[in-house]
Amino acid sequence: MPGSIFGQIFRISTWGGESHGKGVGVVVDGCPAGLKLAERDIQLELNKRRPGQNKYSSPRKENDKVEILSGVFEGVTTGTPPISMMVMNKDQRSRDYSNIADVYRPGHADYTFDSKYGMRDYRGGGRSSARETIGRVAAGGAIAKKILDEFGISILGYTRKVGPVEVDMNTFDASVINENLLRMPNMDKAEEAGRYVDDIIKEGNSIGGLIECEVTGVPAGLGETVFDKMDANLAKGVMSIGAIKSVEIGAGVHVADRKGFDNNDFARYEDGVLIKETNNAGGIAGGMTDGSPIIVRAAVKPTASIHITQPSVNRQKENIDIMIEGRHDPVIVPRAVTILEAMTALVIVDAMLMNMTARMDYMKKVYE
Amino acid sequence: MPGSIFGQIFRISTWGGESHGKGVGVVVDGCPAGLKLAERDIQLELNKRRPGQNKYSSPRKENDKVEILSGVFEGVTTGTPPISMMVMNKDQRSRDYSNIADVYRPGHADYTFDSKYGMRDYRGGGRSSARETIGRVAAGGAIAKKILDEFGISILGYTRKVGPVEVDMNTFDASVINENLLRMPNMDKAEEAGRYVDDIIKEGNSIGGLIECEVTGVPAGLGETVFDKMDANLAKGVMSIGAIKSVEIGAGVHVADRKGFDNNDFARYEDGVLIKETNNAGGIAGGMTDGSPIIVRAAVKPTASIHITQPSVNRQKENIDIMIEGRHDPVIVPRAVTILEAMTALVIVDAMLMNMTARMDYMKKVYE
Amino acid sequence: MPGSIFGQIFRISTWGGESHGKGVGVVVDGCPAGLKLAERDIQLELNKRRPGQNKYSSPRKENDKVEILSGVFEGVTTGTPPISMMVMNKDQRSRDYSNIADVYRPGHADYTFDSKYGMRDYRGGGRSSARETIGRVAAGGAIAKKILDEFGISILGYTRKVGPVEVDMNTFDASVINENLLRMPNMDKAEEAGRYVDDIIKEGNSIGGLIECEVTGVPAGLGETVFDKMDANLAKGVMSIGAIKSVEIGAGVHVADRKGFDNNDFARYEDGVLIKETNNAGGIAGGMTDGSPIIVRAAVKPTASIHITQPSVNRQKENIDIMIEGRHDPVIVPRAVTILEAMTALVIVDAMLMNMTARMDYMKKVYE
Amino acid sequence: MPGSIFGQIFRISTWGGESHGKGVGVVVDGCPAGLKLAERDIQLELNKRRPGQNKYSSPRKENDKVEILSGVFEGVTTGTPPISMMVMNKDQRSRDYSNIADVYRPGHADYTFDSKYGMRDYRGGGRSSARETIGRVAAGGAIAKKILDEFGISILGYTRKVGPVEVDMNTFDASVINENLLRMPNMDKAEEAGRYVDDIIKEGNSIGGLIECEVTGVPAGLGETVFDKMDANLAKGVMSIGAIKSVEIGAGVHVADRKGFDNNDFARYEDGVLIKETNNAGGIAGGMTDGSPIIVRAAVKPTASIHITQPSVNRQKENIDIMIEGRHDPVIVPRAVTILEAMTALVIVDAMLMNMTARMDYMKKVYE
Repeated sequence: MPGSIFGQIFRISTWGGESHGKGVGVVVDGCPAGLKLAERDIQLELNKRRPGQNKYSSPRKENDKVEILSGVFEGVTTGTPPISMMVMNKDQRSRDYSNIADVYRPGHADYTFDSKYGMRDYRGGGRSSARETIGRVAAGGAIAKKILDEFGISILGYTRKVGPVEVDMNTFDASVINENLLRMPNMDKAEEAGRYVDDIIKEGNSIGGLIECEVTGVPAGLGETVFDKMDANLAKGVMSIGAIKSVEIGAGVHVADRKGFDNNDFARYEDGVLIKETNNAGGIAGGMTDGSPIIVRAAVKPTASIHITQPSVNRQKENIDIMIEGRHDPVIVPRAVTILEAMTALVIVDAMLMNMTARMDYMKKVYE
Repeated sequence: MPGSIFGQIFRISTWGGESHGKGVGVVVDGCPAGLKLAERDIQLELNKRRPGQNKYSSPRKENDKVEILSGVFEGVTTGTPPISMMVMNKDQRSRDYSNIADVYRPGHADYTFDSKYGMRDYRGGGRSSARETIGRVAAGGAIAKKILDEFGISILGYTRKVGPVEVDMNTFDASVINENLLRMPNMDKAEEAGRYVDDIIKEGNSIGGLIECEVTGVPAGLGETVFDKMDANLAKGVMSIGAIKSVEIGAGVHVADRKGFDNNDFARYEDGVLIKETNNAGGIAGGMTDGSPIIVRAAVKPTASIHITQPSVNRQKENIDIMIEGRHDPVIVPRAVTILEAMTALVIVDAMLMNMTARMDYMKKVYE
Repeated sequence: MPGSIFGQIFRISTWGGESHGKGVGVVVDGCPAGLKLAERDIQLELNKRRPGQNKYSSPRKENDKVEILSGVFEGVTTGTPPISMMVMNKDQRSRDYSNIADVYRPGHADYTFDSKYGMRDYRGGGRSSARETIGRVAAGGAIAKKILDEFGISILGYTRKVGPVEVDMNTFDASVINENLLRMPNMDKAEEAGRYVDDIIKEGNSIGGLIECEVTGVPAGLGETVFDKMDANLAKGVMSIGAIKSVEIGAGVHVADRKGFDNNDFARYEDGVLIKETNNAGGIAGGMTDGSPIIVRAAVKPTASIHITQPSVNRQKENIDIMIEGRHDPVIVPRAVTILEAMTALVIVDAMLMNMTARMDYMKKVYE
Repeated sequence: MPGSIFGQIFRISTWGGESHGKGVGVVVDGCPAGLKLAERDIQLELNKRRPGQNKYSSPRKENDKVEILSGVFEGVTTGTPPISMMVMNKDQRSRDYSNIADVYRPGHADYTFDSKYGMRDYRGGGRSSARETIGRVAAGGAIAKKILDEFGISILGYTRKVGPVEVDMNTFDASVINENLLRMPNMDKAEEAGRYVDDIIKEGNSIGGLIECEVTGVPAGLGETVFDKMDANLAKGVMSIGAIKSVEIGAGVHVADRKGFDNNDFARYEDGVLIKETNNAGGIAGGMTDGSPIIVRAAVKPTASIHITQPSVNRQKENIDIMIEGRHDPVIVPRAVTILEAMTALVIVDAMLMNMTARMDYMKKVYE
């Protein structure tokens, strides 16, 4: 399927992203009836990803105001009209893109768009633009997370590393994540990373990072066993975020160095409760959740647009040097955390809905 | 969708895997008409993944013989009856599983299967068993790779690392990959890793590794731009392989440490040919291929079954110690290479078929 | 999948329909890049289905003005951002629905909505409302038909019967279809039916009819051979239109009375051109088009809302008598013709795109 | 999707049908765990569709013996390995098809297969052959009906009409349906139709008919509200059966002649039970079931193969006369009843599973 739809039962169709189009939006099909939902629920989540908030993100004033166009009646989802949500673009002044219309910017998808479609909407990045993620956040970050909340499932995303500055997970402090611009779970590291990014800004360069997401309260047994494994669907959802170049579950790349005895998680019952001493599996075995926290990690590449002259080519097949105008984010890592949470929420809600159909006794609970 | 079907146009449904079921198989829907195909094409690929070949894999004699049951007429695919392929199980003697029926083995999906379905087919691993991959290899490793071959696209998988022993990619030698049991692209490293695995065997332990796959000859523009990005679909396909805990594209996890100027790939025309000086993007930008090689990498966890007593629990909620009988592979890494190639081939063929529908001028090529 | 998405490659997601929601719309995923498209193309088609035009349809002033929100750049589809289209509702004054909030109107889906969701948005019919079809017409009637037009394929819908008044197909006159309000292909019958409907209006009653659609210029070989037969997908698309109770292909229900010799279509070559003497098959054999016109026919039930007191029940489980206020269409048959054309166009475009992937030689046309 | 997969959650992939292939089969994905299932359940249903039983069907001895290859453990479905079922072909002697390899038989899909794929497996009809329906019956007629049975839902199919001989539904007698070869619910009519078919046999001709299916015990609220309406999915499933040319729900084509007051079904509570006085809607309103019986009706075309010389064409573009050898069924109507039941069962089970995800309170029933 051609790509703008995600999910099997809880399905979202995002649209827009051309920064000078009329707006961006998302249509959510398959949201169960009976969920309380208001525009402010969506708005709160969208505000988290909004740029222009601080020195690390570009100072466009995107006063993103979401509207729910259908699917909610008297504050509750109705089940049938899909929930359609939209953010109109305020700022449609006709910027001049003629200088980039013909060039292929390093690290951008300009050349691949042209190769695929024989043409390209060069205004502001098109479907690869960060604005496309508004739909993901409205659907996943807001609605899907609200459903999970009803079942005591919560998702916590954070920045684990910015360039060389990494948080030691033994010093993890959830309470400070929203206290620092880089969304790191350790205040000292956040400050150190902040100073590092200041230097990057002075260079006109950009820097990558590592983001992580922990999901707690997940019942055991979610996810399918062959192709639609929980980890496989998480991998797809997370890798579909622009700028992500790796997805890891639990111990991730580190299992390559491990021996079986060290990597196996040992379970014990303590006072009748199943406890895993370690969580190298990241909460997933055989594609299904095991009841311990799901751990997903992803590497975010440094922003492609930088204030340094770079060699490249143009549509006329000439070699050129290019300096990209405008201000750009030196680090998109903290904003990617919001999208990571949104995609994770979408995958888990979808798996919960699918899993309802897995057993005859569940059918009997619903129909008898 | 509940999980035994993979792909959008070129779609495979695998079945079986219970090691004492009657067989395993795959149904391939959407294979274009007019492809030359014979049972020996499938058999050759299956032989690569067969265990019992050497000291690193368990000595079951699986004389897997594939049969094509439908979909081929006079040596050519007919387009319409899906291609149904099956390998009958030869060895169905009733082994005694009573000792594992009630216990949850560390690192296995026993507990999650029970949680999901309220029951479990405890004979030999069920759908998480390595035998399930026969269907993937028959469909992807054989048929999909044969289609790619018609367009000059080739897939080369290899082992990059076994435990601490890693191949320096500057010494990459494709010609030796099939000359060593661990499928490493460097003979010295292969021998060093072999000695390391010998020690692992003596410990009764197991070891993980890193596998990689390079796809060359890919046209630019394959893959969709939002959720069905080429990298997103590769991530799903690869993460759906049992024992895989990470998926990386190109520079992968290393982009977290990189600055934008260092990570951007610079393109130049040399004698009219587009050349990328580096390939940190792994051949994919904005979800679409850029014409340079696709690089996919995955970490394989150490085999869960080991010859060491481990703590665990059973269905009666008791804490127990468990020693798993039988012989087990100390390292499944080289066998995973074959599955990695198969899943990669499936994703690329599917993207090629989907991409045919992306442009009006392609429609005109077909219908005018 | 929960139902608001139609199609496999050319996929539409419709939203809205609550008559007092903010609007209705559709997101079209999978439209090939390079199609010329402007808002006026969509508007023209929407105007055909607009009520308030004449004495047979309710006099709401729906000044439906469509906006293309994304997916078109410089007058051409870009391939990647799905085409998002919306019609804002102008008339959102708060009508009083309290008299119908608790009753189940005969022939409406009030009871089934309540049964399914445990609640219902009683304002103006919700997703069963005629306004939901705006999305179908914008996507199918406008965009899909425009694609078909590029390949010389045209779709002609008309009313074959209104109550007892039926057009003899030997007197078929395409030129008058748009000359009469009932869209009948014979002027005398249109006038006779018009007088019949005048009587229905006086009774406060409503009447059903039979609509048909002929597709010419279709290449042979479209449609799949088992479940996604061309006729099967047409049946689904057409039966998904509200008020449709039958779908027939070619001779349709009349094949039940036929002998094989009389029902088989005999083909002959005349001057090198394949001619079928009859078209009982309706242009489809074995699920695939045979190059002759596709004929689809559907029965439209009489409007459920009438100006006659009817017995029914309410949410309090009481038996009641109900008289539905407001003006209602005595016959929705002519408006259903537009939706029939739209759904037919969607199915055929989707089949054309899918069929591009059916043959190795087509792959070679695109990739070599 | 290319067509050999049906359903959204309960999904079947059929394969085979080439009468001289090695077998036919079906893979059922998404069957809930915990359903009792044995080979004899499947076999019983398959026996109903087996030809060679009587003078109305061709005397091939198809000793179809089904095997369950995976997905069942100790007599119960396991949920995860899809249920793979196969019938091996016994009779693979190489018949001589050279006389039909180059001709296009009237009423068959020979020409359309060649048009679509540029080639065709001419042995015995390929995927259009009646043998393909074995998979549908094994999955739908056996497994899906067994699930429905657990919820008190039953499906009764019968022949309503054979050529000119129609059963008056006021004389409906379910007890005789399996007492006559034509499966008619009235013994006198069955005998009259029998004599009519005897004459057809003497002519060397064939005859069509009308089949119907009634589903009782269905809960209200199944089916989705827009594209995946219960009636839309039934229409697709039924129209995908070879030889079907119409699908009707409830009053079907007769609504075209009806006035609103006569067509609306009036509901009343009698002793607290909701009763519909009529069932013109066929148990479906707005795409959702209303709790009264679902009525589906379909016209079956006369067998294309007859013992009369017919005009046609061949691959060499010559006009020819053709006489098709072998014995053929004069009437396939009674066998189509079995397939109608199977497809109906598949659609209803799939809707039941999908509907489980429609409400937050259902989620809470399963997860709390």
